[in-house]
Amino acid sequence: MSERTAYVNGEFLPESRASVSIYDRGFLSGLGVFERTRTFGGEIFQLDRHIARLYRSLKAVRLDAGLTAEEMHETTVELVKQNKGLLGADEDYFVGHYVTRGPDKAGRATVVILCEPIGFDKFAHHYICGGHVITTHIRAIPTQVWDPKIKSTSRMHLWLAEQQAQLVDPEAYALLLTLDGNVTELTAANFWIVRNGTLVTAPVQTILSGVTRGAVLEIAQHLDIPVEETNFQLYDIMNADEAFMTTTSRCVLPLTRINGNAIGEGKPGPMVGRLQKGWTEVFGQDFVVQALKHIDKDKVPEGEAVPL
Amino acid sequence: MSERTAYVNGEFLPESRASVSIYDRGFLSGLGVFERTRTFGGEIFQLDRHIARLYRSLKAVRLDAGLTAEEMHETTVELVKQNKGLLGADEDYFVGHYVTRGPDKAGRATVVILCEPIGFDKFAHHYICGGHVITTHIRAIPTQVWDPKIKSTSRMHLWLAEQQAQLVDPEAYALLLTLDGNVTELTAANFWIVRNGTLVTAPVQTILSGVTRGAVLEIAQHLDIPVEETNFQLYDIMNADEAFMTTTSRCVLPLTRINGNAIGEGKPGPMVGRLQKGWTEVFGQDFVVQALKHIDKDKVPEGEAVPL
Amino acid sequence: MSERTAYVNGEFLPESRASVSIYDRGFLSGLGVFERTRTFGGEIFQLDRHIARLYRSLKAVRLDAGLTAEEMHETTVELVKQNKGLLGADEDYFVGHYVTRGPDKAGRATVVILCEPIGFDKFAHHYICGGHVITTHIRAIPTQVWDPKIKSTSRMHLWLAEQQAQLVDPEAYALLLTLDGNVTELTAANFWIVRNGTLVTAPVQTILSGVTRGAVLEIAQHLDIPVEETNFQLYDIMNADEAFMTTTSRCVLPLTRINGNAIGEGKPGPMVGRLQKGWTEVFGQDFVVQALKHIDKDKVPEGEAVPL
Amino acid sequence: MSERTAYVNGEFLPESRASVSIYDRGFLSGLGVFERTRTFGGEIFQLDRHIARLYRSLKAVRLDAGLTAEEMHETTVELVKQNKGLLGADEDYFVGHYVTRGPDKAGRATVVILCEPIGFDKFAHHYICGGHVITTHIRAIPTQVWDPKIKSTSRMHLWLAEQQAQLVDPEAYALLLTLDGNVTELTAANFWIVRNGTLVTAPVQTILSGVTRGAVLEIAQHLDIPVEETNFQLYDIMNADEAFMTTTSRCVLPLTRINGNAIGEGKPGPMVGRLQKGWTEVFGQDFVVQALKHIDKDKVPEGEAVPL
Amino acid sequence: MSERTAYVNGEFLPESRASVSIYDRGFLSGLGVFERTRTFGGEIFQLDRHIARLYRSLKAVRLDAGLTAEEMHETTVELVKQNKGLLGADEDYFVGHYVTRGPDKAGRATVVILCEPIGFDKFAHHYICGGHVITTHIRAIPTQVWDPKIKSTSRMHLWLAEQQAQLVDPEAYALLLTLDGNVTELTAANFWIVRNGTLVTAPVQTILSGVTRGAVLEIAQHLDIPVEETNFQLYDIMNADEAFMTTTSRCVLPLTRINGNAIGEGKPGPMVGRLQKGWTEVFGQDFVVQALKHIDKDKVPEGEAVPL
Amino acid sequence: MSERTAYVNGEFLPESRASVSIYDRGFLSGLGVFERTRTFGGEIFQLDRHIARLYRSLKAVRLDAGLTAEEMHETTVELVKQNKGLLGADEDYFVGHYVTRGPDKAGRATVVILCEPIGFDKFAHHYICGGHVITTHIRAIPTQVWDPKIKSTSRMHLWLAEQQAQLVDPEAYALLLTLDGNVTELTAANFWIVRNGTLVTAPVQTILSGVTRGAVLEIAQHLDIPVEETNFQLYDIMNADEAFMTTTSRCVLPLTRINGNAIGEGKPGPMVGRLQKGWTEVFGQDFVVQALKHIDKDKVPEGEAVPL
Repeated sequence: MSERTAYVNGEFLPESRASVSIYDRGFLSGLGVFERTRTFGGEIFQLDRHIARLYRSLKAVRLDAGLTAEEMHETTVELVKQNKGLLGADEDYFVGHYVTRGPDKAGRATVVILCEPIGFDKFAHHYICGGHVITTHIRAIPTQVWDPKIKSTSRMHLWLAEQQAQLVDPEAYALLLTLDGNVTELTAANFWIVRNGTLVTAPVQTILSGVTRGAVLEIAQHLDIPVEETNFQLYDIMNADEAFMTTTSRCVLPLTRINGNAIGEGKPGPMVGRLQKGWTEVFGQDFVVQALKHIDKDKVPEGEAVPL
Repeated sequence: MSERTAYVNGEFLPESRASVSIYDRGFLSGLGVFERTRTFGGEIFQLDRHIARLYRSLKAVRLDAGLTAEEMHETTVELVKQNKGLLGADEDYFVGHYVTRGPDKAGRATVVILCEPIGFDKFAHHYICGGHVITTHIRAIPTQVWDPKIKSTSRMHLWLAEQQAQLVDPEAYALLLTLDGNVTELTAANFWIVRNGTLVTAPVQTILSGVTRGAVLEIAQHLDIPVEETNFQLYDIMNADEAFMTTTSRCVLPLTRINGNAIGEGKPGPMVGRLQKGWTEVFGQDFVVQALKHIDKDKVPEGEAVPL
Repeated sequence: MSERTAYVNGEFLPESRASVSIYDRGFLSGLGVFERTRTFGGEIFQLDRHIARLYRSLKAVRLDAGLTAEEMHETTVELVKQNKGLLGADEDYFVGHYVTRGPDKAGRATVVILCEPIGFDKFAHHYICGGHVITTHIRAIPTQVWDPKIKSTSRMHLWLAEQQAQLVDPEAYALLLTLDGNVTELTAANFWIVRNGTLVTAPVQTILSGVTRGAVLEIAQHLDIPVEETNFQLYDIMNADEAFMTTTSRCVLPLTRINGNAIGEGKPGPMVGRLQKGWTEVFGQDFVVQALKHIDKDKVPEGEAVPL
Repeated sequence: MSERTAYVNGEFLPESRASVSIYDRGFLSGLGVFERTRTFGGEIFQLDRHIARLYRSLKAVRLDAGLTAEEMHETTVELVKQNKGLLGADEDYFVGHYVTRGPDKAGRATVVILCEPIGFDKFAHHYICGGHVITTHIRAIPTQVWDPKIKSTSRMHLWLAEQQAQLVDPEAYALLLTLDGNVTELTAANFWIVRNGTLVTAPVQTILSGVTRGAVLEIAQHLDIPVEETNFQLYDIMNADEAFMTTTSRCVLPLTRINGNAIGEGKPGPMVGRLQKGWTEVFGQDFVVQALKHIDKDKVPEGEAVPL
Repeated sequence: MSERTAYVNGEFLPESRASVSIYDRGFLSGLGVFERTRTFGGEIFQLDRHIARLYRSLKAVRLDAGLTAEEMHETTVELVKQNKGLLGADEDYFVGHYVTRGPDKAGRATVVILCEPIGFDKFAHHYICGGHVITTHIRAIPTQVWDPKIKSTSRMHLWLAEQQAQLVDPEAYALLLTLDGNVTELTAANFWIVRNGTLVTAPVQTILSGVTRGAVLEIAQHLDIPVEETNFQLYDIMNADEAFMTTTSRCVLPLTRINGNAIGEGKPGPMVGRLQKGWTEVFGQDFVVQALKHIDKDKVPEGEAVPL
Repeated sequence: MSERTAYVNGEFLPESRASVSIYDRGFLSGLGVFERTRTFGGEIFQLDRHIARLYRSLKAVRLDAGLTAEEMHETTVELVKQNKGLLGADEDYFVGHYVTRGPDKAGRATVVILCEPIGFDKFAHHYICGGHVITTHIRAIPTQVWDPKIKSTSRMHLWLAEQQAQLVDPEAYALLLTLDGNVTELTAANFWIVRNGTLVTAPVQTILSGVTRGAVLEIAQHLDIPVEETNFQLYDIMNADEAFMTTTSRCVLPLTRINGNAIGEGKPGPMVGRLQKGWTEVFGQDFVVQALKHIDKDKVPEGEAVPL
């Protein structure tokens, strides 16, 4: 076998044939919900939590996947098993679940599960120099329109925010503020600052509560690091000691600039280091080492040493 | 030929094979814009205006379709030509244009054009008894998130509003209010009231300015009917003389109930009749006669006569 | 004595003669504040807390009742004493306090205290099948207009919300959201969800902090059940394990549907059961048993057993 | 006959016996709508317009008065006829219509019509020195809660605004701003400024469109005075040439101070004079002359001459 | 004389000695209002309008300048006379009026009038290639805080917006949106788009209504160009045919990019050309020719010809 | 030496010569940040905390003071040393730090440090009778415009709020509400209420977190007084047991009236007394005794005894 398979509505198909009808309401109207899990060494990480959240999203939009959570779990395991052999050295997968309303004529949801290699080269250098965060005029979706806790496939505003942020820096991460100006999250990651030894992150009311965010809460408890889940603003980022993002693929990735200014010392700080080490202790993977094996050296700023 | 064709990225394909990759960002993330035009007697109606609006949406989301507006026009004409023969008596097509970001690997947009028979039986009876409008807690997308003038394929909130409205009446049309409580539009149609002989509809700042809305503005000018494009509220609907919707498929369709209450006399009124006649005068089609040929008689309230 | 008496401005009058001038500013302009307490077995429950809250409302609207809190208390006790004999078996009273600005010419407040039999038949079946909660486009009064903590007799929006909710289900309870989309309260009750064994209810900033809500906080402490007073949204209700309301008459009443969807299992859950039992332990009344004696059997869904 | 009569639910009663049950939901919950018309020389002014607006309010809150508009009109005429003889020299009536939900047990609305002598002495001196307008922190009811076009008896916020304004000046008129800071109306009157010869007043979307406001629009047309119905702000009042209010009892009354500052010259200006004269031309009454006959001379600032 | 003079509180001083106390509340707290007028060929342009607006600002903040408008006018003329000789060839002045609360101990306002040479080299090249407009997360001051029509010296947000915009392009002009997402103005200029031959600019409710904006309204009337003063959004800029700014120093300057995208053809368009010519016709100055004499050739994009 | 000196851009100058250029952008545009520290017995109180906050403000507006925090500290100490001898008996200084953008031509910030005698006579009587708090229509700056945690010299809205509050009472303190109606702070002080033995104050998200506020948090911890940092509203002030302000000059000053109503008993309460005593215990100064030595006896209400 030389091609990855994907699960589409009951079938395991080679990706080149894995498609959905042009009449799928996921395609036509963004009517769907999704999850993105990852593997470590080919093993799926916290799949249960991702599937539980998928079913919360489904319930909130009144969509019936046609599979139970257990069936979704088993199908996922089977798909990863089929594709595991295609992973190169130090590679891993995003495992994506997409459930859409399907074509109106079908009268049932479309379910897609896919394995997509994580593009470590896109961000590995950020473990060394940190990422750049930009706020734009585009605001987070307010709960009066739909709840940001629904992981919806209608993501137009996130793309618009990325486009706008990348006018400043093509590698920037866009940070979304609420209509009221509070910090929420990056376009596909939770955002944290470190302030006087405390981790600070937005409360679950206005964000998608990430599974990786939950993992870091566990690590913080393990390491006895205090955490505040509270509203905060741009001022707090400008004056933070450190900042970082948590997301499925990057786990804990340092962010060292905000709107062109250095955060703290302007380089990855000790708290991020502690959390990265804590991750290895608690979950047994060293995601930084893995990512650095894929580093794109052209993206490392001059003068920065690559530790591996 | 016994199957309709669709245009997908340069090819005319039978619909059963017309599909998009599961990696298409239109499917995964709702990153796309679209239009829905209709035919009358198999001839496309005001295609230029729809294509112009499509290109305004594209510009606003910085997406390059890979085709010029002229090419899009020619391709559309060709597709309709291919499918025209499959139209039954008194049938017509929706002609849908969908342009999405495509799969990330493709590095170019996905362009789909499709011909979908209009389901007249779903709404033909509303020309006789009028439709029912329901307001819900779901609000229109505010411009701080993305501009409602972009005809985006990210439409989660519209679906949520429809679900909520249909708790009251399975045939209800959901009306979206702004965060400030002003009337905007139905989930896929512009909304109008008639007040003391004047047509009143929301201003273009907070709505998708419909092509059919434009057609009615032309008819109003032709018939010397005054029009106000202004913010109005639920109170004004409760106290309106008549109400109606304008949309590609239904053209001008009367709305006779708002949140369970009769609007005006609770039946299609004289102004709607004038506009429907005016349509025939100005554009040469009698859309009501056509739709009634497909009427689902089970949906006509008892005691109502079907004029045909 | 065969007719209940009410207290009106210093006099105890038979209810058929208990009236206020048409010039009363409570009648003309909704300028008043109120409380509704209940009796258990003819004994007034937590009267002090209701009167304390009444005087907080009076202070916030700068209205002088003309009676001290102590006099208000004594008068209430006397009124209930006068009416107690008219209670039927297993019946109890709402004890209502209404203080309005009075007629402008009077130059002093109108004070009314009344005993109204609780209509258990209207809701007793909800202890068995649970109530249905509906959110509508009508929003809670924001503090910029007047503070929702004032228990004002200006209640137009609550009536409008009930009318709208009852389009879906004539027995529905309307749930009010803030302008920002946060859950506040039902039209005359506090609203709670149960999430992973924790009771969750809106914070006192945006709601009228109910006396019964306080009673449940006491019970939760007694039973060691964790409580979060925090903002939450519709998503959280859709995904809650259970939900219930607290209000003077119903005490703790299960809510099993939200906008047409089942909450949790769609039937009264174990946490509601614990709280109802806890109420009996802490306060000595079994309000469910009492209410079920008045049940309207026509309202019990088929197949549900009535435990008494 | 020495006592005025009022109409209450089908009966004409002496006012001392005109009352409503303490169970009336108008009294308990502010669930009602109303109108206030006035007489000139004992003749009712523009009763049709007031009754039409009353029925629009009724429709918006889904309340059935139990009387047709025609019956309401006739009953009003009869009541005024009964009371006309009790008017003193140069006196006139407010004619109030109040329709509430009534007591729940009654199952029908309460209808009250009353004749209340206009207290000219409270405001007559303002025709000479002008009134004082104060803005406070209390905001107008937003349409998301209920529409300000409904003339509701739930008026708590208006009272709170008056109390706050009268901390500055016991005779002040409170001006309500929207949540967004736009000028709406006084607590029972429309508000206007004069700017470069143009009358400016808030648009009907955010205010109760007054019948007297309509009368002034007529006069302006008669006198060829340009009018702008547009949003404006406090800045515009601070820099206006003149300001005035329109309301049933006062018709056109000059306002000469805003938040302690003079408006224009700080005294009634020429445009107000033109409108007052225009009123006499168009409607045949000289309301200023009438009011000044009742002037409370203690309220006239020293040095101001009373013209009569 | 080799040094410019400035007017400070009654004295004409050489600029090197023109200073204000560190206790001036203008310096300590931004408590002041201002105007910036310009000269053409050393003659002051529309000074009366600037001084009238200055006095409107003063009135709105209740500040007494201690000089009448006439005295302010005469003093200004005198100052310009003193400084006119120091103008180089083709140079002109900004004439700034600043009135602050002064030091608390002084008990009277500080009045400063100054002549500052216009830095044509900073923007002259924009007449050739057009300026770049950027929207940021910083919003315009809302009228609930203070009215944007007050030309206040408290300008922190405008500076923050400029800093943020200049992350994208060091020469960018920052465009402020309202809290609701409507376009207002640039940090020191009004903003316009051209749409189908019509000039569109924000309504005076949410902006400082510029004197130059007024001049362009006059020109448009002279040239019979239609104008809409209406709310519009970013979508409208993305899809505009042209855009430009109006401001004291630059008069009418083309804007050719919005958030990195070309506006229209991406170069100064014909409408801007008409308005610039119209300016010369109506007001007799050719401001483009003047500015181009100072052009910084390093700032002209390669391949662009400089017309002079 | 008979005149105080101030530090201005590197020099210590007599105050009569301490000035800034009229071109300073602090003066022209309010582009600066500041701090106000005080001395006790001529010793600077918590200078480090004030300087740390100054540098957080500087960072948030991207302004480089040109001095390190250490240099700022030393310079301040030197300035106070120079001026200490000029303090009269029982007098003390405000020590103000002002850093502005400076004149554009200078290309560097202006730094001013000044010593201003505290005007104890302005407020000493409030320790006896308490101050009066007024809410107005002017709202606090929202974070979308700039963050209220930046201690900016752009303070126009604070002045407007004071002017409006002082229409009610010339000695009133203006209390700012957020756009949402939550209590924030006074124009130059934090605001607290006492409720059932707990101190309640606004959370740091919407206010400038005062250094004196921090001092009171320390005292509360020392005295074991519970504290809630939470949003609260006007209702809570109307019903509070006590209220007080904390600010550099007044430390802990009782507030006894809100919008004309007594707070609690309407006189300084026991909690304020405890905190004032606690201050002496923790920090060693008796600020009340000091202030009363400067009392303006004409401001003490009749019948109130002055304890010293």
